[in-house]
Amino acid sequence: MTNEAQKKDSIRALQAKIHAFVEARDWRQFHSPRNLSAAIAVEASEILEHFRWTTDAQSWEIRDDAERLREVAHEMADVCILTMELAHNLEIDLGGAIEEKLAINEDRYPVEKSRGSSAKYDKL
Amino acid sequence: MTNEAQKKDSIRALQAKIHAFVEARDWRQFHSPRNLSAAIAVEASEILEHFRWTTDAQSWEIRDDAERLREVAHEMADVCILTMELAHNLEIDLGGAIEEKLAINEDRYPVEKSRGSSAKYDKL
Amino acid sequence: MTNEAQKKDSIRALQAKIHAFVEARDWRQFHSPRNLSAAIAVEASEILEHFRWTTDAQSWEIRDDAERLREVAHEMADVCILTMELAHNLEIDLGGAIEEKLAINEDRYPVEKSRGSSAKYDKL
Amino acid sequence: MTNEAQKKDSIRALQAKIHAFVEARDWRQFHSPRNLSAAIAVEASEILEHFRWTTDAQSWEIRDDAERLREVAHEMADVCILTMELAHNLEIDLGGAIEEKLAINEDRYPVEKSRGSSAKYDKL
Repeated sequence: MTNEAQKKDSIRALQAKIHAFVEARDWRQFHSPRNLSAAIAVEASEILEHFRWTTDAQSWEIRDDAERLREVAHEMADVCILTMELAHNLEIDLGGAIEEKLAINEDRYPVEKSRGSSAKYDKL
Repeated sequence: MTNEAQKKDSIRALQAKIHAFVEARDWRQFHSPRNLSAAIAVEASEILEHFRWTTDAQSWEIRDDAERLREVAHEMADVCILTMELAHNLEIDLGGAIEEKLAINEDRYPVEKSRGSSAKYDKL
Repeated sequence: MTNEAQKKDSIRALQAKIHAFVEARDWRQFHSPRNLSAAIAVEASEILEHFRWTTDAQSWEIRDDAERLREVAHEMADVCILTMELAHNLEIDLGGAIEEKLAINEDRYPVEKSRGSSAKYDKL
Repeated sequence: MTNEAQKKDSIRALQAKIHAFVEARDWRQFHSPRNLSAAIAVEASEILEHFRWTTDAQSWEIRDDAERLREVAHEMADVCILTMELAHNLEIDLGGAIEEKLAINEDRYPVEKSRGSSAKYDKL
């Protein structure tokens, strides 16, 4: 990867860029955990809005529609930007939390029990 | 950063780990864009659940409660895991989309117009 | 309908009962439009949680599972209770707003254009 | 109340009107529990969108802005329309479920324990 590509791939580098954007506009005052969590929920629903009336099969067709795919990519970016900013403000190591949650999921969903099943861990 | 720390910080490395987890359980069949977008919305609301009745000031107090902070960190991890997996399945470059959306926001919210204001760009 | 059944069917009678519950606990202080709207979003996601990994066909099977059907009915009740309370607090005539929105939808979705289509009105 | 006002206040009368609208457009095919629950979550977030960056106090100011109040009333109507339609399709008595949930809440939140507190019942 080039240096530029590496920065786009780094959670910490993106968080620094997001937070500089926030600081430059004096938006820190609006970025309480409560406000950010409301904003994350709103943006997450904007992803869902694209798929609410489709079947599973139809939802894959978005890959053939470059304009809508870009819209969805930007909604997904919004969810990540706000979640990264919330992690920054709460001094949560987001990459570490993701690794930790994956390890918990490894325990909750052993391969032999969960293969091919969408059941929640407490129903396995 | 150590090599281990660098992997936790890399979106692509996390996506590869997440998708290996999914493949091992044959869960790809459940991970249509539609299902993943519903799951992202559910997990985003689980972050919000922690703050729905608090004031802005109270929502910061979670920093003093290690157990609840860890719960919130894990809900945030869930949102990221599902969004990263959706990006993977739609072949969206998530880090690139975040950079792209930040550039759009730079245009929509010029510093001089948006400083200290929470107004949406179309109301500035 | 008996008098009792009529009360359960009346939006205003339910709103009065809900608001008496709130007043008795001195919860009015927590019921700002902002808090109630966050709570409505959280409860709406709890309905969705039951169906996030199901196909359309599977989602109908909940009718055969009395316990889960009752859980979903209670999540739906929560959404209505909070929305009715928000309408009460903002002095919105909720039944009137529903009639008004249905009339708007009649205009936006003429039968001949929208029959059998899930397209949004601006794409018809 | 006039006969007309009584119909706007009746859950069953509204449900009949909503379902006639759906049938006329042959939309029953899109109204699986899964699709409706996704749509309810999306509409609930559209209420929240109005308040995501406001303080509690500011969120009350919407009462002074007739146009935005009407927008919020219509988002609330959407949430109710979809929830009423879901109840209809699952043959859930929605008014009865609301009464039932209020009775459960009476038990979970005794006045003397919950007065002035926003704590969840399992933390009282």
